[in-house]
Amino acid sequence: MKLLIGDKNYSSWSMRPWLLLTHFGIPFDEVLIHLNEADTNAKIRALAPRGSGKVPCLIDDAGRPVWDSLAIAETLAERFPQHALWPRDAAARAHARSVSAEMHSGFGELRSNMWMNIRASFPGKNATAGVLADIARIEALWSDCLQSYGGPFLFGEFSIADAMYAPVAMRFNTWKPALSATAAAYVERLTALPAVNAWIDAARKETHAVPYQDECP
Amino acid sequence: MKLLIGDKNYSSWSMRPWLLLTHFGIPFDEVLIHLNEADTNAKIRALAPRGSGKVPCLIDDAGRPVWDSLAIAETLAERFPQHALWPRDAAARAHARSVSAEMHSGFGELRSNMWMNIRASFPGKNATAGVLADIARIEALWSDCLQSYGGPFLFGEFSIADAMYAPVAMRFNTWKPALSATAAAYVERLTALPAVNAWIDAARKETHAVPYQDECP
Repeated sequence: MKLLIGDKNYSSWSMRPWLLLTHFGIPFDEVLIHLNEADTNAKIRALAPRGSGKVPCLIDDAGRPVWDSLAIAETLAERFPQHALWPRDAAARAHARSVSAEMHSGFGELRSNMWMNIRASFPGKNATAGVLADIARIEALWSDCLQSYGGPFLFGEFSIADAMYAPVAMRFNTWKPALSATAAAYVERLTALPAVNAWIDAARKETHAVPYQDECP
Repeated sequence: MKLLIGDKNYSSWSMRPWLLLTHFGIPFDEVLIHLNEADTNAKIRALAPRGSGKVPCLIDDAGRPVWDSLAIAETLAERFPQHALWPRDAAARAHARSVSAEMHSGFGELRSNMWMNIRASFPGKNATAGVLADIARIEALWSDCLQSYGGPFLFGEFSIADAMYAPVAMRFNTWKPALSATAAAYVERLTALPAVNAWIDAARKETHAVPYQDECP
């Protein structure tokens, strides 16, 4: 299997399936394509003509592309049932799918104002009313999960739901909005997870830059 | 089971799980909450305190909420394996999940410029460059599916993937952008499906309006 990803410093969508494969020890080859270059889209399309032209995209052992972070996650969960990518309990799984899909289609204010840039530090910036409303909902949702299932991750052990929110933790590390103690502790646990750590380390060593995302006006 | 939905004329996200339940004959009670009212959010939260405060939201037989159209779809597919909500073939299913997730998180230009309003007719309006790029991708994706699996729907029989794109067909009926013959015929087949027809009929009979979505400046 091959996983096409963007720069680790910036590509929040790529981070999710990479974490799942790495954390659960599923073997894969990583193909990193620099974002924001004239040929970015063409390179992705050359490797996955049927796909959306975006990263992440998984090319499975039969050479078939599976694209979009959530579709890749569901497909991995189905193909590797020996790993609990989703919680084993059906009610918890429905809850995990709900919070994962809410992240997948939502939180637009947070995503556009506090973009992921692991190497950068923009504390206190861009905390608009819309962003604060998104953060309040994320805090409520995390707190409900951590209380209901006892932690340390959203549904007990690390699952797809945590992978979906890992880029949010990265954004919080960069932009440092005020967080509840519960949310701050969860961000710390997520940041310390070996797979997350490996992604962060690699991001820090990258030299390719996306200039407009390195500045906060 | 209860399904909380918004006005059928406007609520593109609600349409998806409603179509799945209706098409596959899964019994449910519909709870319609008018959108864009001062108490819309409070009404949804009162029925599903843990949820996102948005429609659609499924309340299952145990009283547990499952929210977001894609999470509801996955949960229904899992709980009603007697119905082929996803294609039965694993490779087709991975493909169906990819195009469904691409719709779920993407096509922002189309969604914000050509909103769903089944009763309205805005032919030729708002066909910006961004919208046309979204439409070109949707046409390519539909055409690939219809060719690969032989139609009449994206993966043969009606599935979650068609439910995800049904609101796009409604938008195309309202805004009438230029479409390829293949795409136009698929929109016609989708529009003629009994479950889709029932939704459209109900939308036409609704009297509650969302004024800012009834005008196209």
